[in-house]
Amino acid sequence: MSDDKYFKNITPRERAIFEGAITMGALFHQFIGTPVSIKTASKLENVIEESMELQPYIKSVEVKINKKMLDEARNEYEYLSLTGDMLSVKVVSEYGDVKIVVRMRYVDELHYPLMYVESVDEG
Amino acid sequence: MSDDKYFKNITPRERAIFEGAITMGALFHQFIGTPVSIKTASKLENVIEESMELQPYIKSVEVKINKKMLDEARNEYEYLSLTGDMLSVKVVSEYGDVKIVVRMRYVDELHYPLMYVESVDEG
Amino acid sequence: MSDDKYFKNITPRERAIFEGAITMGALFHQFIGTPVSIKTASKLENVIEESMELQPYIKSVEVKINKKMLDEARNEYEYLSLTGDMLSVKVVSEYGDVKIVVRMRYVDELHYPLMYVESVDEG
Amino acid sequence: MSDDKYFKNITPRERAIFEGAITMGALFHQFIGTPVSIKTASKLENVIEESMELQPYIKSVEVKINKKMLDEARNEYEYLSLTGDMLSVKVVSEYGDVKIVVRMRYVDELHYPLMYVESVDEG
Repeated sequence: MSDDKYFKNITPRERAIFEGAITMGALFHQFIGTPVSIKTASKLENVIEESMELQPYIKSVEVKINKKMLDEARNEYEYLSLTGDMLSVKVVSEYGDVKIVVRMRYVDELHYPLMYVESVDEG
Repeated sequence: MSDDKYFKNITPRERAIFEGAITMGALFHQFIGTPVSIKTASKLENVIEESMELQPYIKSVEVKINKKMLDEARNEYEYLSLTGDMLSVKVVSEYGDVKIVVRMRYVDELHYPLMYVESVDEG
Repeated sequence: MSDDKYFKNITPRERAIFEGAITMGALFHQFIGTPVSIKTASKLENVIEESMELQPYIKSVEVKINKKMLDEARNEYEYLSLTGDMLSVKVVSEYGDVKIVVRMRYVDELHYPLMYVESVDEG
Repeated sequence: MSDDKYFKNITPRERAIFEGAITMGALFHQFIGTPVSIKTASKLENVIEESMELQPYIKSVEVKINKKMLDEARNEYEYLSLTGDMLSVKVVSEYGDVKIVVRMRYVDELHYPLMYVESVDEG
């Protein structure tokens, strides 16, 4: 196990935050750019979820792609490249008794897809 | 339609080659790095196929991820980041009466994931 | 050499189109999502150019990131994730005596970052 | 400012860990796959550093690409696609008085590019 050797200097709560944050950053930069349409969005959401759940201490991932933006795609090819403002994501990480929910969603007033810790449950 | 304006200087056969090649380059650089395990590989193959089939003049895409390499993943987390040497891909593009098959596969003797035109069918 | 074995079924002109198109698709899907600001844009353009010039038969790559869009970034962090509508790219591929210029630019009337063959020079 | 609204439930130390981890996950999944050779490696390292330093609360980023692996690239095109086992990265995040160093390096005994908190400095 790598934990004893590499993670002695942080608490379980910090470890859960650490792992959830890695996965959120990874998810965004892996899948941004993927061609997506109203027809492929659900399956893409599901595969992003399953792929990112493979990462260490990730309990679940929930991805929502904004269908309204896909519906409004006005180009002749009827698909878009996935962008941050289409995405709403929830990553649940768990380490020991601590469960963290990391969220990403586009915040209009910030003009930015904000990543933040939505909740901390210390069991 | 964009064709009359932007694609006058190439033939239908060249256009099919052009579109197939774009999609192959795009596929590789979009999905390399995705976390993948023996459990998620089939669904990931399927979503890569559907996503890339959205691109203009792409008739079908077939993706095979090397399951043997996934099985042999020796790290404690039991998944890998998708790399070029795990991938075998076939992209079929069609423009007018011309059908092109673009292939990518890791060629051992070249030490390289080679992309090439496997076949041209002029209908 | 891989050429005799894998590329017998296409002409030098088609080969140049093929390689230019691969590189354009690759460039888009590799670098979309990269954090970029008015301060980092020039160096990022340069590294995208040099990285993609490594690909087979690519003679030169020219990348322009829309500085006006970066200037207008209104979020508090003063950077954006690179998107297709910020990019204008020229890829020059050369095979034998044939030189091809592949272009990508966001075409307003198409609402799409169009990739097309801008010119063919048969030497 | 988004901090009061979205980050009330974590400490400054946790926030620094959170931001460093996001950037490490993002860096890996953004740049894996980039074509790189012994000639382009230094500039690519530098651009990855500058791009990721744009992210919130990131003070510095240091990227080392394994030149030995590039030297040994045996394919005829003399470049490789960047993979996790070529990368050694240090991300320094700072929030309030707390400074965190997040590391990623390929750990041979784990067969895995491990991300971990290398040090915590509470000022």
